[in-house]
Amino acid sequence: MNLARRDLLALGLTAAIYRPSAAFAASPPPTDPASSTGPGAPSEEWPMWDALQFGLEGRGWSDVARPLSRLPERAESLVNGTIWRLAQHTAGMSLSFRSDAEFLRFEVSLLEPELAMPHMPATGKSGFDLYAREKGQPWRWVFTAQPHDADYVALVRGLRPGKREYRLHLPLYNGVEQLRVGAPEGSKIESVAPRQELPIVYYGTSIAQGACASRPGMAFVTQLGRRLDVPMINLGFSGNGRLDPELCDLIAELDARAYVLDCLPNLTPEATAERAMPFVRRLRALRPETPIVMVEDRTDPNAAMFPLRSNLHVGNHRAFRTAYEGLLEEGVAGLTYVADRPFLGEDGEATVDGSHPSDLGMVRYADALEPVLRDVLSAK
Amino acid sequence: MNLARRDLLALGLTAAIYRPSAAFAASPPPTDPASSTGPGAPSEEWPMWDALQFGLEGRGWSDVARPLSRLPERAESLVNGTIWRLAQHTAGMSLSFRSDAEFLRFEVSLLEPELAMPHMPATGKSGFDLYAREKGQPWRWVFTAQPHDADYVALVRGLRPGKREYRLHLPLYNGVEQLRVGAPEGSKIESVAPRQELPIVYYGTSIAQGACASRPGMAFVTQLGRRLDVPMINLGFSGNGRLDPELCDLIAELDARAYVLDCLPNLTPEATAERAMPFVRRLRALRPETPIVMVEDRTDPNAAMFPLRSNLHVGNHRAFRTAYEGLLEEGVAGLTYVADRPFLGEDGEATVDGSHPSDLGMVRYADALEPVLRDVLSAK
Repeated sequence: MNLARRDLLALGLTAAIYRPSAAFAASPPPTDPASSTGPGAPSEEWPMWDALQFGLEGRGWSDVARPLSRLPERAESLVNGTIWRLAQHTAGMSLSFRSDAEFLRFEVSLLEPELAMPHMPATGKSGFDLYAREKGQPWRWVFTAQPHDADYVALVRGLRPGKREYRLHLPLYNGVEQLRVGAPEGSKIESVAPRQELPIVYYGTSIAQGACASRPGMAFVTQLGRRLDVPMINLGFSGNGRLDPELCDLIAELDARAYVLDCLPNLTPEATAERAMPFVRRLRALRPETPIVMVEDRTDPNAAMFPLRSNLHVGNHRAFRTAYEGLLEEGVAGLTYVADRPFLGEDGEATVDGSHPSDLGMVRYADALEPVLRDVLSAK
Repeated sequence: MNLARRDLLALGLTAAIYRPSAAFAASPPPTDPASSTGPGAPSEEWPMWDALQFGLEGRGWSDVARPLSRLPERAESLVNGTIWRLAQHTAGMSLSFRSDAEFLRFEVSLLEPELAMPHMPATGKSGFDLYAREKGQPWRWVFTAQPHDADYVALVRGLRPGKREYRLHLPLYNGVEQLRVGAPEGSKIESVAPRQELPIVYYGTSIAQGACASRPGMAFVTQLGRRLDVPMINLGFSGNGRLDPELCDLIAELDARAYVLDCLPNLTPEATAERAMPFVRRLRALRPETPIVMVEDRTDPNAAMFPLRSNLHVGNHRAFRTAYEGLLEEGVAGLTYVADRPFLGEDGEATVDGSHPSDLGMVRYADALEPVLRDVLSAK
């Protein structure tokens, strides 16, 4: 049961059509009372564009095994299998186009059949998020696709007339095999080239990858990109992102405004003590000038109720700060340390499971990190 | 893939065991490295209590067809089939108990096999939320169950020693057939009687029912109950809650501190104009003294992009306010009108689909309504 869809269909506003078939051309769409007739009715006859050919933002490498990989092909033999699989997820990637269409049709083929996680809806794991920007205005959220199947069609209709720029944020925990966008005959769709300015490279865990945002645009790394108006490369790897030495060399390949290291949620105090200094030392050696931001772990909002979890946070924070101070003593320059403020607020309500932020927690994470990154970017 | 579970298992903190079998006693639990040995290891041998026999809050009627129905049995012939089905969802219901256990085991059988919606995770639709309160402290969130199946077992372990009161918030979009709670031999579990003070009765749509909170405790009606420390009766009915005349008489049966009417999201200006005055007039006649709060529709954060949606809001708001002013002119007393402030904030980010709030939107909804209800409650 898709409440939103039914409500919206009844009002004839926006809607999504979902097909059980894996092949887009295999069968006619199911009857949709709000779209079966009338000018501009969604149609498989509309001109369609291959959106994967549009300017792609948020991808660090172009020597990739698949167009939407977050790591280069040669990384497959360097990283563990889980990181490699997660690198095929499109977390943080976006495509931009300009259009004057009042109706848009999206045809999507996803890489993995699992659309949701128990604590993350399909909209966030496998959906896409459409934002729009008009002259002189900030980006505004417009539409989120609700996948019912690994292959689906989503329609946006009844858009206010006018040409505007759109940005499509891709799924956080799924890959994309095919993505086509179409509009009625006579409407325009023009790709927008990706920005050329240097990105911030954000290396972290499931939280950085985007769990458990309700939609891709709410991942805090993506929010930071909008707020700072800077491209972001999301290298969050769920259950991983443990200051892995092999990631250090890969990250250093990317010319960046800053590197952010946010790996404590998947580390122990022992591992932090062992890995943090060598990782930062090496990254600094490979990239002598680029700011490095060391982000302390958030505190789980229920940690006070679970002594083991509370002790883990205390130990992780201490080990990471000790590493930072040791690096300063060694004379490593260009480091910024971000202590937990706490990132998730004080009311205990900002996660779905104690670890992963809801959209509420994602906004609080972005609130905590925005001023830090703004300072880092504005420093000469 | 359940990331949270894997992460937590690795750390041996909280965890959930899920069984493919529909029968709790049919098979041994799967191997759980963190729980298979040691004192206090989760066990099917633990003493178990039938939590449905604990003091239940949030249920309006006791003459029910099922223990956890939101409407009385006799309502089945009065309301439409969808409302009747949704009345079996446990939105807004909670159970309370006291315990000194460091480990808790929950065995749950759900009514409906669909655990999630595309835009709402299983944690919110079908999970339960555990809060705890210690002497002189506010309620704090502790744990959320992540259902993988309509029958599941969830474990909470490693709780800080100490006796405290727990409140279990039940699923927002599912019913509960069975709910048992257990603890290791020697630990205590004592039911807590429900509060006897009068509740606020909240009549509304899917948004009031709780779509799309990430967990039951984040539904804004439930949040208001915590903030105001007052029992709430959630009569939100997804796709319904249209100021249905038959609901008026049912609601008036409930002795309440206040009635809140929040039905515009599923109404049109025409229906609002037709239904609002008769509904309020009749409710006032049946309950001459009880405050009635008329809540205007939220504005969809993408309404500016969709003229039809924007017009709908404007029309609904105007029709509802006109009804309110007409009622005042007739001399109907004890009315409070709440205009959209807007309830979802100004940044466009607080919903998953334009209509239904994420946890971010749920907090903003509660922020908007809390002072209004506080005033209503404090008025003599």
